[in-house]
Formats: sequence, structure tokens, C-alpha cells
Amino acid sequence: MEKRVLVTGFEPFGGETVNPALEVVEALAGRVLDVDGSDPVQIVAARIPTVFGTSIAVLEKEIERISPFVVLCVGQAGGRHHITPERVAINVDDARIPDNAGNAPVDAPVVPGGTVGYLSDLPIKRMVRAMQDVGIPSSVSNSAGTFVCNHLFYGLMHLLKTKYTRVRGGFIHIPFLPSQVVGRELPSMNLTDMVRGLEVCVRVAVEHTLDLPLSGGKEC
Amino acid sequence: MEKRVLVTGFEPFGGETVNPALEVVEALAGRVLDVDGSDPVQIVAARIPTVFGTSIAVLEKEIERISPFVVLCVGQAGGRHHITPERVAINVDDARIPDNAGNAPVDAPVVPGGTVGYLSDLPIKRMVRAMQDVGIPSSVSNSAGTFVCNHLFYGLMHLLKTKYTRVRGGFIHIPFLPSQVVGRELPSMNLTDMVRGLEVCVRVAVEHTLDLPLSGGKEC
Amino acid sequence: MEKRVLVTGFEPFGGETVNPALEVVEALAGRVLDVDGSDPVQIVAARIPTVFGTSIAVLEKEIERISPFVVLCVGQAGGRHHITPERVAINVDDARIPDNAGNAPVDAPVVPGGTVGYLSDLPIKRMVRAMQDVGIPSSVSNSAGTFVCNHLFYGLMHLLKTKYTRVRGGFIHIPFLPSQVVGRELPSMNLTDMVRGLEVCVRVAVEHTLDLPLSGGKEC
Amino acid sequence: MEKRVLVTGFEPFGGETVNPALEVVEALAGRVLDVDGSDPVQIVAARIPTVFGTSIAVLEKEIERISPFVVLCVGQAGGRHHITPERVAINVDDARIPDNAGNAPVDAPVVPGGTVGYLSDLPIKRMVRAMQDVGIPSSVSNSAGTFVCNHLFYGLMHLLKTKYTRVRGGFIHIPFLPSQVVGRELPSMNLTDMVRGLEVCVRVAVEHTLDLPLSGGKEC
Repeated sequence: MEKRVLVTGFEPFGGETVNPALEVVEALAGRVLDVDGSDPVQIVAARIPTVFGTSIAVLEKEIERISPFVVLCVGQAGGRHHITPERVAINVDDARIPDNAGNAPVDAPVVPGGTVGYLSDLPIKRMVRAMQDVGIPSSVSNSAGTFVCNHLFYGLMHLLKTKYTRVRGGFIHIPFLPSQVVGRELPSMNLTDMVRGLEVCVRVAVEHTLDLPLSGGKEC
Repeated sequence: MEKRVLVTGFEPFGGETVNPALEVVEALAGRVLDVDGSDPVQIVAARIPTVFGTSIAVLEKEIERISPFVVLCVGQAGGRHHITPERVAINVDDARIPDNAGNAPVDAPVVPGGTVGYLSDLPIKRMVRAMQDVGIPSSVSNSAGTFVCNHLFYGLMHLLKTKYTRVRGGFIHIPFLPSQVVGRELPSMNLTDMVRGLEVCVRVAVEHTLDLPLSGGKEC
Repeated sequence: MEKRVLVTGFEPFGGETVNPALEVVEALAGRVLDVDGSDPVQIVAARIPTVFGTSIAVLEKEIERISPFVVLCVGQAGGRHHITPERVAINVDDARIPDNAGNAPVDAPVVPGGTVGYLSDLPIKRMVRAMQDVGIPSSVSNSAGTFVCNHLFYGLMHLLKTKYTRVRGGFIHIPFLPSQVVGRELPSMNLTDMVRGLEVCVRVAVEHTLDLPLSGGKEC
Repeated sequence: MEKRVLVTGFEPFGGETVNPALEVVEALAGRVLDVDGSDPVQIVAARIPTVFGTSIAVLEKEIERISPFVVLCVGQAGGRHHITPERVAINVDDARIPDNAGNAPVDAPVVPGGTVGYLSDLPIKRMVRAMQDVGIPSSVSNSAGTFVCNHLFYGLMHLLKTKYTRVRGGFIHIPFLPSQVVGRELPSMNLTDMVRGLEVCVRVAVEHTLDLPLSGGKEC
């Protein structure tokens, strides 16, 4: 029987008209990966509103509907050079800009009374290494920020640790698309490369529960 | 009776011959701050080895010896533009370069079985605002990395939450000195400005337990 | 009768195993552009050694052999975010690293007694605008440096102004490929996007002798 | 008899309320440098409007009034990390933003019919080395841009080459002050360090007509 991976992408925010995360996720939707010594794995995509609270509610509905064994949420990190699997989600909402419903919480918890942080379940160093092996610029990130991306990541990990304990999950930030930075001195990555990189990540997440003993991320 | 603030700076590491944190801390040593409606506060400085494990042990000895009511640890973040009060310490040691004793742990906990993260006790947004008010480039950081700086920050917060529960504390990263980047395209900050910025931070930490309702740090 | 555009790319240098300029130029080789109200235009490619002196000699041989009406030289500018048509070549060779034959001139002229600078013949603002219109990050550059790229650009313009006066020409710098920066925090651009951008530039160079009245490049 | 060096700084522009060049120049005004084997040298400062055309006219009046043997013009280069002696002025006015009188020329010559470029008269590599020797981040720049800074630099060199042929001159760009970037992720340099760096440059310009055989500036 086929297994399913849920990959999610956010709606555009912050004045952008596209969100590379959504573009990547829609390009991956429906792909079936053949996995050694296992049933094939289907990628199912979901679109997540860039809204505090609602984003987690929509994610949970999709988890209920799709019954994935791995969940990989993807978000835009404008200004980054690399595809960056995130190491840790923190229990902080702190918005410099409003979300798509106009909310801008300051120093609020994602989950009141929740633990300060959750580490990703996914083998992030292995993902980075596998992307680098196919020529995709990639590195570990030690902060998913404090906007809706970190909010969803924290919400995901809280759901997985408290309710869907057999499901593994994590979060990946990706750069702007070239079309988003045509007149700005900012890094970007081509959609084809990002789709390829994310497919590599899904495959690694599906095939490996243990990570490689490699250091990763900035030392400070 | 005089109250004491302990400020700490690391020994040089990573091929550098100075550590701006140590320079700043030694410049602040012995200063006495007059505080409205309170006894004056003396700044006591300590030098911390840039070594996993040992750094926390030395810090605890200094806390025992000095009996501070606030502890502010300072570290070098080469490549940053601003003085950056840190928001969160995470329970991860992951070293891209060896520490000064040759240790390079990968994905190890700072405290086995410890919580994933601790938030700073200090009013970090108030510190940023106060530094900006006197013309010092400053912003909140959402990651202290995974090297000895984060290690000490996590170790400090663990001590304060489990043993020295009346003491408040936090961590601040500072840029390179100009002399460290003479031939490199990297940002730096003058020692005078960093000393002034850190004195502002100590004063804010001493005078305020509550933070301002301002957002801070990169959204991702 | 068919007209020809000569596009040139350098051999890899500075420790790199590929040169994106050469990759782009070889991908464009042989393409024929249909141009409104004119004969079709064929793109002919040439490979240029990254060597002071020799590079200009090889370029002149190719001009003699191919008889182009437009010459567009392309070089790698590692660290740039954009495809950057160059505004000006200067009569200075000043090498921080040796060229591929081990030469490292300091403050030497490209052409002894030559004028200090030559402006590009090509409509560089129109090129930038046309690339931006198809979603390619692009801007004008005011310096081609002082290594072999500027050397060839100056040599080209000197040839065009003193000998091949009916030929127009210029120089374009392009970013690293993603595969060149997998483990480095540097910008890059996908080969497909660079090929598309350069084809746009060739078309603009062929169709327009006058530039648009738009400002371009950093003010300092 | 005392010799005089004219140093100039621009009025604030582009929405800034200060110009570090003006601050530095006013701090240097009146200083007298003792020079080995020569009469002492006095630094005379002048304030230059950030306006195309007028800036050069004011500069010429000051040269007439002061009779300097060296002229060093200083300008703000927001976003740079280093104090950067400029290598070359180009005969191009191309303004992305209006000057302080509302002018925004596009691709216009500074001097109609003038040569494309002038190289600095000053020993720029020696200046860089001397600043680095006292711990000031410094490097050669290959472009002064195309705004009023380059305009004045070109105008200065044109005056020196065509009219005041016994006077030597050049241009230096300096970073933002820390107070200009408090809430922005941009590099800056302390006023004290910039004053010290510029005094070093004046001394080098006074004492040396020949440069050191060192490479300098980005290769592209």
C-alpha cells in the first residue's frame, strides 16, 4: 500500500505576489517516489494560509485527511542563499510585519505553557549533504525566525509530539525566486533547482530516521 | 550595600588573537552604576575559557564567588553588524571548528535530558531600544549558534532556573573589532562604542525586569 | 546574408573547475536569432584563455576569422547577485591572484599610452531592462575590476576604436553557478537563466544602437 | 613657510541628516602635520554642496583661495565596510536619486568632450597599507559610482590636469557612521576611526608621490 508524505507551502505574504514555497510544493504534488525495500511513497501537497493560528489549524486538518507518515513544511526565507533545513522551532510569535489577516503578535507563545523549543525530527544534515551532492547550495539553519514559518513549525512539532506520535516532521526554508529580486541585490534560486532540492529532501526524510554525524549551521 | 552584576567575556578562539567580548568586559570591570531608587551596582568581570564544559564550570565558580543578582555573558559573533542580545539558548552543541581544547562535539546536548531551549531572562527589546537611542547599531538575535557561546548561554540559564533562581541572566553577541577585519570585507564595531553599548545593556538589565512590547529580530 | 555575433567566455580560473561564462557561451553557440527588418543573426562562440595578453590576441584572431558586427565578451564575477552589463573598461592590470599562466601584474597598463577608459558600445540599460522584463535579476556595473576580464574588455574596445571601427562591442559579468557555491554563503544563478539572459542581451545588442534614458548602477 | 592640504566633505544627501565625510573633514580642519624633511603641513577643510556642477565650482573657488599642494575630496559610500581610496574617476553623471538641487542627470558627461577617465594622483595602495597598519579596515575601490562623488572627483582631476598642474589630488569614500545604521543591517565605522584613517591618508599623500607595488581592489 502506498505511503504518503505531506508537503506544505505558504500563501504569498509581505507584499510578494508569489511564494516560492507554494510553487515548489505544487510542482512536487502527485509525484511518486520509488523507495528501496519499501512501498512507493506519494507526495501530497497542501496550501497553508500565512496566518497565525489558522495555519496550524489547516495543517492539522490536512494531517487528518491525508494520514502522512512524514510531514515537511516549506517556507520562504527572503535573503537566504541556500535551501536551509531548520534545526529548531521556538515557542515565540513575534511579528515585525502583519500576517495575511493583519495579526502582529509580540512575544506571545505559539502554545501557551508549551515547551520552549522542539528539535526537527528529520535528518537535516543528511538532507544538506544530499542536496550538496547534486549541486544545490544548502546548509542547516539554527533559526526559523519568529513569524508564521516558525509558528507553523512549532505547531507541527507540538502536534507530532502530543497527538500524532508516529508521524515525523520538520521545516525547510527556501530562498526567493529570481523573479522576486530582479531589481534588488538579494540572492535567489531557480524553481527547477528548488524543486529538485526539495525532492531530494523528501527522499532523505522517507529513507532515513537517523542523521549523519556532521556539524552544520553557523557557529554563531 | 552594593549589588553586583557579573559580566563575562570569552578568550580568543578560531584563529583570532583578541576577543572583543573580553576587551569590552575588561573595560567595564569595576565600574559602579548609580541606579535610581536602589543601591549602586558594581560591574564585576570574569574571563571564560572558550571550551565546552569548562566554560560552564568556570562561570558557576564566578557566580558562587561574586553572588551577582544579574549575569550577562558576552561573546564574539564575527560577521554581525550589530550588538545583538540573544533571545534563546538551545540544548545543542554542534561545532564546525574545534574549541580551545580541541573539542568539536556534533549534535550533543549541553545538558543531557535538559529542556530543548531557555529564553533569556533579560529585557532584550528594551536593551536594543536603549542602545539605538544612543546611536549604537543593535537588534535582537534569534540564534546564538551551537558553539561555545550558545553552550555557555544554555548552561547559564540552566543554572539560573535550577539552582540560582533569584539571579537573572542572558547573553549578548557583539561584532568583530575593526582591527580584526582590516583586510576582510566584514562588518566591525569600535571598542568605545561596544563598551558604551554594553554599559547601556547592564543598566537596562539592572533597572528593568519587564520588557517593552516591541517586535524584534528577523522574521526568518 | 547571415550576420554574426561573436560571444566569448573565459576558461576556468582562480581554483574553480568550471567558468559559467564558458558554459553560457557554449550553450548559445550556433543559435540563429530572427530579427525584425534584418537578416537573421547567428551566434558564434569562442573560448578565451584567462591570461593577460594572450586573451586579447585570441580575441583578435576570432574577430578576424568570424567577422562579427557585434562582439559580446562574458566573464565570471563570483559574488555578484545579478547579470551585470559593464559600463566602462579601464587601462589598468592589477591582479590579486595570478592568471592561468602565472602572471600577476600590478598597476600596469593594458595598452601602454592608451586612454584611461573606454565606455561600452552596447545599450546596457536596455539590456538590463529587457532581462528584468523576463524575470532575470540584472543591473548595470560600473567596474569590471582590474583582472583579465577588464583586461579583455579594454583590449576589445581598443581594437574596436582603433581597427575594427564598424564593429560594436561590450562586456557582461555573470554570477557563479549554483554548483560553485554549494557550501559557501554566496549568490549564484542557474545556467538556464543565465543562457536566457545572455540571449536577451545579444538580441538587444543586435537590434539597438541607442540606449534608453534610464539611470543604472550604484551611485557609489 | 607652511604648506596646505585641502580636504573637502559633502553636505548630507539622500535622506541622511549627517554626512560622515563632512564630520571627518571638520574634525581634521586646522590640524598641522609635522613632516620629515619638509615644512609642516596644515589641513584646511571645505564644505561642498551635493549638487552636480555647483560642487565643482565651489571646489575650484576653494583651490584658488587656499592654494593647496594636495587636494583630498571625501564622500560617503553607504554600504561599504572600509575606507576606500578611489582609483579612477569616469566622465559619467548618472543619478539614481536626485542631488540636493533636484538634478538627476542620466548618462551625461561631467565635462563634455572630456577624456573617459582619470586615475587618482595619490598613492592609494600606500594609503590602504598605512591605514591597515594602524588597524583601520581599508581597501582600494575601482568605482566611485556615477553620482556627485564621482562627478566631483572627475571635476577635480580635470582641473588638476588642465589648470592646476602642480597640485596632486584624489578621492576617498568612507562608510556610514554607526548612528546612521542603528536599525539597519549595514556596515559602519566610528568617527574617531575615520578621522584617524583620513589623517593617515593626508600624511601619506603629503609624504609620497610614488605608490607601493601592491595589488588592490576586487578583481571583478
